[in-house]
Amino acid sequence: MPLSSTEIKKYAIALALLASGYGATAQSKYDAQVAQLLKQMTLEEKVGQMAQITLDALAKPVPKNQPKAFELDPAKVEDAVGKYYLGSILNASNNRAKTKEEWFSVISTLQDRALKTRLKIPIIYGIDAIHGATYTAGATMFPQQINQAASFNRSLVKRAAQVTAYEVRASNTPWVFSPLLDLGADPRSPRQWESFGEDPYLDGQLGYQAVKGFEGDNNDADNPEHVVSSIKHYLGYQVPLSGKDRTPAFISDQALREYHLPPFKLGVEAGSHAVMVNSSIINNIPVHSNKKLLTDLLKTELGFKGLVVTDWGDIDNLYKRDHIASSEKEAIMIAINAGVDMSMIAYDYKTFCDDLIALVKEGKVKQARIDNAVARILKVKYAAGLFTRPNTDYHDYPKFGSKEFEQAAYNTAAESITLLKNTDNVLPLKKGVKVLVTGPNANSMRALNGAWTYSWQGNLTEEFAGQYNTILEALQNKAGKENINYVPGVSYKNDGKYWEEYPDKMEDAADAATRADVVVLCLGENSYTETPGNLNDLRISDLQIQLAKKVMASGKPVILVLNEGRPRVISEFAEGAKAIVQTFLPGNFGGDALVDILYGDVNPSGKLPYTYPRYANAIITYYHKPAEERATMEGAYNYEADYNPQFKFGDGLSYTTFKYSNLKLSSPTLSAGQTLTVTVDVTNTGQREGKEAVLLFSSDLVASITPDVKRLRGFDKIDLQPGQTKTVTFKLTPNDLAFVNADLKTVTEPGEFKIMAGDQTAQLIFK
Amino acid sequence: MPLSSTEIKKYAIALALLASGYGATAQSKYDAQVAQLLKQMTLEEKVGQMAQITLDALAKPVPKNQPKAFELDPAKVEDAVGKYYLGSILNASNNRAKTKEEWFSVISTLQDRALKTRLKIPIIYGIDAIHGATYTAGATMFPQQINQAASFNRSLVKRAAQVTAYEVRASNTPWVFSPLLDLGADPRSPRQWESFGEDPYLDGQLGYQAVKGFEGDNNDADNPEHVVSSIKHYLGYQVPLSGKDRTPAFISDQALREYHLPPFKLGVEAGSHAVMVNSSIINNIPVHSNKKLLTDLLKTELGFKGLVVTDWGDIDNLYKRDHIASSEKEAIMIAINAGVDMSMIAYDYKTFCDDLIALVKEGKVKQARIDNAVARILKVKYAAGLFTRPNTDYHDYPKFGSKEFEQAAYNTAAESITLLKNTDNVLPLKKGVKVLVTGPNANSMRALNGAWTYSWQGNLTEEFAGQYNTILEALQNKAGKENINYVPGVSYKNDGKYWEEYPDKMEDAADAATRADVVVLCLGENSYTETPGNLNDLRISDLQIQLAKKVMASGKPVILVLNEGRPRVISEFAEGAKAIVQTFLPGNFGGDALVDILYGDVNPSGKLPYTYPRYANAIITYYHKPAEERATMEGAYNYEADYNPQFKFGDGLSYTTFKYSNLKLSSPTLSAGQTLTVTVDVTNTGQREGKEAVLLFSSDLVASITPDVKRLRGFDKIDLQPGQTKTVTFKLTPNDLAFVNADLKTVTEPGEFKIMAGDQTAQLIFK
Repeated sequence: MPLSSTEIKKYAIALALLASGYGATAQSKYDAQVAQLLKQMTLEEKVGQMAQITLDALAKPVPKNQPKAFELDPAKVEDAVGKYYLGSILNASNNRAKTKEEWFSVISTLQDRALKTRLKIPIIYGIDAIHGATYTAGATMFPQQINQAASFNRSLVKRAAQVTAYEVRASNTPWVFSPLLDLGADPRSPRQWESFGEDPYLDGQLGYQAVKGFEGDNNDADNPEHVVSSIKHYLGYQVPLSGKDRTPAFISDQALREYHLPPFKLGVEAGSHAVMVNSSIINNIPVHSNKKLLTDLLKTELGFKGLVVTDWGDIDNLYKRDHIASSEKEAIMIAINAGVDMSMIAYDYKTFCDDLIALVKEGKVKQARIDNAVARILKVKYAAGLFTRPNTDYHDYPKFGSKEFEQAAYNTAAESITLLKNTDNVLPLKKGVKVLVTGPNANSMRALNGAWTYSWQGNLTEEFAGQYNTILEALQNKAGKENINYVPGVSYKNDGKYWEEYPDKMEDAADAATRADVVVLCLGENSYTETPGNLNDLRISDLQIQLAKKVMASGKPVILVLNEGRPRVISEFAEGAKAIVQTFLPGNFGGDALVDILYGDVNPSGKLPYTYPRYANAIITYYHKPAEERATMEGAYNYEADYNPQFKFGDGLSYTTFKYSNLKLSSPTLSAGQTLTVTVDVTNTGQREGKEAVLLFSSDLVASITPDVKRLRGFDKIDLQPGQTKTVTFKLTPNDLAFVNADLKTVTEPGEFKIMAGDQTAQLIFK
Repeated sequence: MPLSSTEIKKYAIALALLASGYGATAQSKYDAQVAQLLKQMTLEEKVGQMAQITLDALAKPVPKNQPKAFELDPAKVEDAVGKYYLGSILNASNNRAKTKEEWFSVISTLQDRALKTRLKIPIIYGIDAIHGATYTAGATMFPQQINQAASFNRSLVKRAAQVTAYEVRASNTPWVFSPLLDLGADPRSPRQWESFGEDPYLDGQLGYQAVKGFEGDNNDADNPEHVVSSIKHYLGYQVPLSGKDRTPAFISDQALREYHLPPFKLGVEAGSHAVMVNSSIINNIPVHSNKKLLTDLLKTELGFKGLVVTDWGDIDNLYKRDHIASSEKEAIMIAINAGVDMSMIAYDYKTFCDDLIALVKEGKVKQARIDNAVARILKVKYAAGLFTRPNTDYHDYPKFGSKEFEQAAYNTAAESITLLKNTDNVLPLKKGVKVLVTGPNANSMRALNGAWTYSWQGNLTEEFAGQYNTILEALQNKAGKENINYVPGVSYKNDGKYWEEYPDKMEDAADAATRADVVVLCLGENSYTETPGNLNDLRISDLQIQLAKKVMASGKPVILVLNEGRPRVISEFAEGAKAIVQTFLPGNFGGDALVDILYGDVNPSGKLPYTYPRYANAIITYYHKPAEERATMEGAYNYEADYNPQFKFGDGLSYTTFKYSNLKLSSPTLSAGQTLTVTVDVTNTGQREGKEAVLLFSSDLVASITPDVKRLRGFDKIDLQPGQTKTVTFKLTPNDLAFVNADLKTVTEPGEFKIMAGDQTAQLIFK
């Protein structure tokens, strides 16, 4: 049946809307429904929507010796969902993964009760799904974000988010607290591994892909294979002065906009439906109380239309931790007025709801603010499809935990593992060599995965991930048990703090090294996140240093395999390693991927997404200022600075070699409104196929504020056969060369720039 | 002869002016003369006044093997002083102290030439006089500023500056680049020891005394026993992100005003005639280019009327280091327009003068800016008395290097050395005990003094300070050589980098320990300052750790004597020391003072003016936020923070004991315009006389920005006989409880405060 011209116009408009992606337009799709619903709501019903509690608050007490036990307490559910109309619930119970069947049962029970409330508003269940469906048994655990960044491969990042979204929905959950867009600019941070690394451009580019992977290219989060994403932790998390989690950071407005804001700006542009707020304190102002950041910058300047949710208990923290409120009630007033839409209360919803209702009645929180918050929450619930499909049934998700998904996780691991040193081509290994494998990370699924794996701190991983291969098991599978000797040397105390370890046949390890052809020394960290993961000294542990020195004393070639959430200082023994391979936290298939690399079945192609420090007190990102690495001055006074990382951002070797040539600019000058095309030829000059992340940098030679020595402006991952050459093309606009000036304006100043790729450089004049 | 009433009035006005101290009023004392002189000056003569060069630029080349050789090159002098009219010269030649006779000869020669220029304007010679007359042989070397701070004794600080002023004038020099008012808030800084420690209040109070000590109570710097002082390094030096000297710092405007500005505000109020600018970069803006800081804040808001001088070569740095100018000339334009009055060019004055003249002619630097700068410089020259007394002759300074001055330096050392641990009262030692003294700091005048001692890095100290006692020599003098066995164990390589050391009979030291009654283990650092003093790891050196562990293995009581410019991490072996004594950098009489304390002839009374970290990556000042030391949160998520210093700010033991009681407030409430009197009784409850620094702290329990856990608000050093009680009185106004709020206003907000002294607390309500 032919369409009428009116109908054709309608479709054209709909298509245009779709093509425009999720923005202000798409976000207003549900405005009419939201307004209609809002009109019918009582203040109590509205305030309930703004409250989010943890599942444990609705459970019967867990008997001491039954950590897996879980039962909803109907009276608590009745009070929270029935009487207080709570809008959202989060988290696993008892900090432990459930099966998808259990998730369906729990969440559908809650949802059923919500749908019986007066206005039948569904709850929205939220979960931390950090490198896969963290809290679902049998889900596909990908490498962590830091690995995804090391792949420098946008499509892998998007794929990981797509698979995660699918498996989270298979767990009847429509909302994830991912991706993390904090700059991983401080190696002391216990969450650096949750980030896309230290570079704002890389972070933003990959964050964009992750949002689209979770929500879909058009942010149709009501698609039952998509979820609502949350970009977090807005803004300036991960760079506290002390390096410790959730402690005060001091960030100038200029630096905030230059380094920390761009990834969030891209995340908003990507259409993420939710933003989670930074738990910490910037310039002595807790971010949860900062109206300039939450309302003026995020909602007004960036135009964010979704919901702003706190992190765990963070309104309470304004009172109990930060002492900027003299009561819980005042804290609620401050946070809601600053722009918080939903409070991740965690437990005590009665205080929150009662206080907020009172505040509205007292005029201390405006009704308009409540309506705005609730409208944002309801819009997200509509966007997630909850009004039409309140539950998603695992029976409809046949690919959950499938080989196809596992292959995707493996592929990401294989492209992220980063070869940092390979003296005399000691790698790849020959199959028949006698290997000693040693170190606390050699036989641990927990360490391979890091935290947010079946539990918060990742301490239950051995229980859930027995079917996957540790490094030891993968080595045995690959080379035969007869060629693999395992002596731990050092082991982690898995029932204590993450840093607790003990010598475990260290002398035997030293002795075994003398009888091996090669030693695979697996060092790093046990799993941790957030404050339990704080450190006091970036040096790797004394015991691991001892083990390294002992096996190196054997004189046998040592392959140092790093498996760690942040770059622990290894300079006391790194010289003694013939090869160094950084696995980061490669997930359940990381052992297999590593071993495929060690034996040459996979050619490594990861590159470091951060600067690896050589010393505990020499922590500088690659995009530092010229003052950080200046040469000697004239005369008696030598003010020479010292830039001395162990490995640099972008370092990463291959088993083949790549040659860069013909870096060309489409024009030697660039002006406002123009686009420059940059091309560079990359040739595989070695003997085997390989992938190469091609990174484009620029340097602004003179600027009104001291410019960074260089900045990443583009990247592309290519695959080259031996002898093959590809021309990689980048487009640069003046905005790509811009910086935030002293007046907080983003400007590109006339003058000379240097454009760099590989060993190639070109001069550009911006006029 | 009786005075007429007119005459009486005149004297009354003069007396009132004197009594008003040096402020805007006194500073305009020379306005008429300055204006008169300025009118006669050509542009070339004016620009010359703004130029300062180093003495080496006027010297004949120094023959290779004659580092002491120095001869002015008349042709160079003629060009610089005669032709270019340079206004100021600084520094020692060839980075080495001269005798006072040599100084008279050199400076009077230069001065003579200046006085023969057309307008007969004298030069002003400036020198780094850091803990005494650094560059004058035979001068009295006091303990460094960090020791002076540890004394918590205002009068000792003032006295040190008075003696220094006298001896600098005895060296025919009217201007010093002291005191340093940077917050010593980062133990990684290679200049922390040059500061008065980490606390803004302590820093400001002592800085005030130092300025008055240098310039006189009425800032009559023309008094031939006074000098012009320079408060430095304005503003925000010593807290770069990397911890390394002269690298970028990120400081919020709020933090800048809350912590860094108050000492400089007091320094301006004290009347310091000069300000030296921070060499570094704050929020990506080099301070030498920052008009907001140099002109708007310093000159306008604080009302500073003196001269602003750059640090070494720092205008050039805007071009060569920081890349905010595309030429030397542009750099000059930026700095002068930002508010720099005098450039410490160092060498190439021709470029500076020629470029600046051209800039004025081109209209890029306004004539008014030049006139303002030159007027400030001339005013300081008048204030220094140079127009009436261009030279000061050492013959007029009989107290130079006298016993009286040496006693003053000793007294400061004795009150600054800080006893941090004294298990089982192992100290004081009995005279007859057999002592092993070991460690690289046991026999080094260089290490005792630190840098800025006879040379920049302090590496010539053994040559100049042979007559003073190292720790070893003082021990031998006190207890008899027969009781003192010395084995270095570890020694510094004095011809290399400060951190270079080597094992020096380490096994012998371990062996000797077993035969001693007690081990005095002297660890720390060799001398350094500025970038050569940068470190990469705050842990004390591996060799020193080894030595400590070896001598502790003897089982003999170990007295750990620290002699270091910053608190190097000792946590790996501190538990094994029976006593720990921090000497900081106690100067030429520090060995004697230490030994008098070790043997109980002096009762120690120093207190730590900074926080001593336990770990390299656990660096937090005492005035951190509650988030830095919060307790466990409710529920599954433990966000406990961890405040774990080795020693706290204010720690310091005595050989007697003090009891605090009766902390009383004159009123439980305080309001605007009122003054609160706080009293506390302190009783010497032990067996011997002792001095006690009584510290008064306050905590703001709730504030609009997260308040510091506590802040120092007052201190007083008292002396108590056994059994004696003194009542210490502090006055507090609302301003003493104020903080800089998010709008950068200094406010005292109504609410509850806690007042603390010793173990006493009281509640105060501000209404």
